[in-house]
Amino acid sequence: MSPDLGTVGATERTRVRRIPEKAVTDTAALHAVLDAGLVAHLAVIDDGQPFVLPVAYARRGDEVVIHGSSGSRLFRRLADGAPTCLTVTLLDGLVLARSLFESSMSYRSAMVLGVARRLEGDDELDALRVISEHLLPGRWAEARQPSRKERAATMTLALPLTEASVKISSGDPEDDPDDLLDPALLSLWAGRVPIREVLGDPVPDDHTPPGTPVPTYVTEWTRG
Amino acid sequence: MSPDLGTVGATERTRVRRIPEKAVTDTAALHAVLDAGLVAHLAVIDDGQPFVLPVAYARRGDEVVIHGSSGSRLFRRLADGAPTCLTVTLLDGLVLARSLFESSMSYRSAMVLGVARRLEGDDELDALRVISEHLLPGRWAEARQPSRKERAATMTLALPLTEASVKISSGDPEDDPDDLLDPALLSLWAGRVPIREVLGDPVPDDHTPPGTPVPTYVTEWTRG
Repeated sequence: MSPDLGTVGATERTRVRRIPEKAVTDTAALHAVLDAGLVAHLAVIDDGQPFVLPVAYARRGDEVVIHGSSGSRLFRRLADGAPTCLTVTLLDGLVLARSLFESSMSYRSAMVLGVARRLEGDDELDALRVISEHLLPGRWAEARQPSRKERAATMTLALPLTEASVKISSGDPEDDPDDLLDPALLSLWAGRVPIREVLGDPVPDDHTPPGTPVPTYVTEWTRG
Repeated sequence: MSPDLGTVGATERTRVRRIPEKAVTDTAALHAVLDAGLVAHLAVIDDGQPFVLPVAYARRGDEVVIHGSSGSRLFRRLADGAPTCLTVTLLDGLVLARSLFESSMSYRSAMVLGVARRLEGDDELDALRVISEHLLPGRWAEARQPSRKERAATMTLALPLTEASVKISSGDPEDDPDDLLDPALLSLWAGRVPIREVLGDPVPDDHTPPGTPVPTYVTEWTRG
């Protein structure tokens, strides 16, 4: 993967320093990783201590939207302008090199830095719809809409994709050239073991009337 | 899940405030989540900005060990004593309630707060072995061991499990009682869709001699 600096807002802070050939900075790659994930890990600093929270999220155009409890201390810190980082990582496989040093994992990871802003009114409702449709496509039209009380209990934030980076590690192990000249090591099996997420059969709860069909939109969901 | 405060080092900072019934604080649950994950999300503050990095890790007794590049600015910050947070999240499913507000995800998440210490010498080598055996069980004995140069390029850190929390969200949707009295909503399918990680067939690289069998330890790996 060759870097294509500049399309996404790459800055000194988001530049991938360690292994620059793994950096991918075009917008399409960033959007693809964000659109493929379900859970993001979100940083909040409180009293000097960083916290990393798993959160549901969705991409809405050129921003990421998240929601949480309006009573959450950490969400309030973000609404107050605390700098944050949101990272989405998709694990694609295990990589077995001939050396332990080069053994690794295949993954796609997107990192967004910035300051979130709180959403209100119809803009917030739209963001909640986008999150719902990202996680549970088709459900928004059927389930009960948020009540006034539920809306008050919810805080919704948007984080712009102005400062972001993507790293993609894929393919075969990249062995040390010397290891590929060593007959003993060359007799070793090396390669990769793919990992993917799969959905199991939907399980109705006890209140669902027997015989109620699983909605078509649910049967169409797939992962990985 | 009822909280069992005190077994793990629960502090004011790690107490699960939002939904305390999802908090599980016994050591066995913490270890189980850490032992089931492959990727952790690690926070580092640099110049006031938090970063969240995906990292390989393993539990070694009552600490978590991680490794990175000894040239990494963010890893050096941690070795210098910057406070950190390491979070491991396992996504178990999608939960479809009758309301959008109660719709959610099933997950298990462990959060560890603290300050890491840098490992050296045989202690570091042991931690590297533990990480390798966590991710790629059986491989350490077969692959080439780290060279002196590779060891110098690697920084290994340990984070104690003295301040940690676990959240587990599982089971059926927890609908608003009023929604369960509404005939229209009760006719809606509600329940959960399990998610699990699966491993695909191992793929040898181009340098592996044709006919080389996949190692037995690899064929025994499973996920989810």
